[in-house]
Amino acid sequence: MSAPTLVTVGEIRAAADRLRGSIMRTPLIPAPWADPGRPLFIKPESLQVIGAFKVRGALNAIGRIDDGLRQRGVVAYSSGNHAQAVAYAAARFGIDAHIVMPEETPRVKVARTRSHGARVVLCGAGQREVVAAQLVEDTGATLVPPFDHPDVIAGQGTIGLEIAEDMPDVRTVLVPVSGGGLASGIGTAIRALCPDAQIFGVEPELAADTAEGLRRGSRVSMPIEDRNRTIADGLRSEPSELTFAHLQQVLTDVLTVSEDEIRSAVAELAVQARLVSEPSGAVALAAYRRHRTPAGKTVMILSGGNIEPALLAQIVAESPTVGVDQGDGHGATPTRAV
Amino acid sequence: MSAPTLVTVGEIRAAADRLRGSIMRTPLIPAPWADPGRPLFIKPESLQVIGAFKVRGALNAIGRIDDGLRQRGVVAYSSGNHAQAVAYAAARFGIDAHIVMPEETPRVKVARTRSHGARVVLCGAGQREVVAAQLVEDTGATLVPPFDHPDVIAGQGTIGLEIAEDMPDVRTVLVPVSGGGLASGIGTAIRALCPDAQIFGVEPELAADTAEGLRRGSRVSMPIEDRNRTIADGLRSEPSELTFAHLQQVLTDVLTVSEDEIRSAVAELAVQARLVSEPSGAVALAAYRRHRTPAGKTVMILSGGNIEPALLAQIVAESPTVGVDQGDGHGATPTRAV
Repeated sequence: MSAPTLVTVGEIRAAADRLRGSIMRTPLIPAPWADPGRPLFIKPESLQVIGAFKVRGALNAIGRIDDGLRQRGVVAYSSGNHAQAVAYAAARFGIDAHIVMPEETPRVKVARTRSHGARVVLCGAGQREVVAAQLVEDTGATLVPPFDHPDVIAGQGTIGLEIAEDMPDVRTVLVPVSGGGLASGIGTAIRALCPDAQIFGVEPELAADTAEGLRRGSRVSMPIEDRNRTIADGLRSEPSELTFAHLQQVLTDVLTVSEDEIRSAVAELAVQARLVSEPSGAVALAAYRRHRTPAGKTVMILSGGNIEPALLAQIVAESPTVGVDQGDGHGATPTRAV
Repeated sequence: MSAPTLVTVGEIRAAADRLRGSIMRTPLIPAPWADPGRPLFIKPESLQVIGAFKVRGALNAIGRIDDGLRQRGVVAYSSGNHAQAVAYAAARFGIDAHIVMPEETPRVKVARTRSHGARVVLCGAGQREVVAAQLVEDTGATLVPPFDHPDVIAGQGTIGLEIAEDMPDVRTVLVPVSGGGLASGIGTAIRALCPDAQIFGVEPELAADTAEGLRRGSRVSMPIEDRNRTIADGLRSEPSELTFAHLQQVLTDVLTVSEDEIRSAVAELAVQARLVSEPSGAVALAAYRRHRTPAGKTVMILSGGNIEPALLAQIVAESPTVGVDQGDGHGATPTRAV
């Protein structure tokens, strides 16, 4: 098999032009309570209209479909933020969206997806790809994959473009990795525009397939039952051939974090940064806290904020970070060099 | 007594020039789950470095002190966000800050104030003004009042300038009112630059002195024991002669909200907007929900996010809003016309 063609910074720039006015250009929020030697800035993609970065890739991918074909609508399968992203993006284009979701998807997520006008098709466990393929055949609609597509990668990459514009002297970028679309896109932009910066992917220890894969030089697969154990429910996917090829090219390394560290990071973001994050959205802060990342300006991607309210309440109430860490002007001491 | 001289939009523009690069220019975040007839946008001052708008007024007031005098430091008395704002602003200028706080101030707030390098002077109940005056006499430092000063009002007014620049066709602005510095400044900017907009102050029912005062045409005072009952601990002050004169000039009206409505608004902001707010910071959303504010683009000021973690957890876990309101694409029906 030939090596996949990688997304270019030019394609990411074109995506940024396409998205202008349709997404929020998120600010870099300083986190002055963090380590002074590694000044930390938060890129809060949780403030996008659907609460996650996924809207960038969905809007770019739908925008790139030929006009006539696009009128036949789009299909996606997801129980997470990609579902709402495609539903929202389709509504912006005034086209139909068919979203395939597992029957056990929380009612709230189904309702939120429907609230954008999408048609939700519930299906049995393991059936969603088959059901989506059938919908594509029946309706002529186009499938919008969650990460395995150059247009999706280019859309997510616009985050990297914004970082490079707002902070050209950034030294470290910390990005969650699941299917790898976000890290592929951001990494491509930062590599091209900020050649001195290091780009670290971040994974939960319980779903550290990419960390292992990059060490070995080829993709590894972990059983989904194992990956499903992490609280970071947005980080249970694995890269495709396309995204893995990008990650090999653009990532300095992948850092892993524990479940407790993820929970502490959710609490720290709520209390210190006044930002609600989902567990998957907080792993970059967990990595910053656990590992001795390089000195200099550091940007963490807060990738999403769609957390169950009961879980948010529990984490904020229980976390040992709260009350210990706050107010001393410094964060926890990192325990591992990278 | 002659009528006080009101702050001008020119002074607010000068403040904006002074603050550029030292504060965050907060975005307007769309709230698409709100009422489509009154599209709502959130101005998240909670994302300022100290978690509240107060840093604008403090930086402007300290920046306006003559160089020689400023070197002798500043004094403030506050148990709330103004304490941290002056401590932070003084550190930016490299000068001493003496912050007088009541002995019963939560340890966390004392620690956060000290974290900026300020000297905290604890004092007995009702003693803080006397202690602050003595500090001014002993050190030659300048007192920075929380709201009763034109430079503080002009600093807070930069929020209104940003709104007018980002959304010139805004129709309604909702602003919390306590001592009135924030509403005076924002109202002055919006009146001058967006003459078609209406500006509503918002108060808790339990501390609705300004609502009553504007009706009567003169300031009224409510017993502090009564005002202290509201959960919105940042809204227990009353306007000064100076701020009241501004409010009479610039506010369309003052809307009041109940304690339950404030708690629901804190929960709604966390779950729907992924933004942590303190109760005082959420009253504008409570007013939007309770009252039939005018049609058209509406901006609410989320004035601060410094909430005790335990209270945030309790409100998010308990609020009846969560799970009922979310995901239906529309908010609650307003129950009162204004």
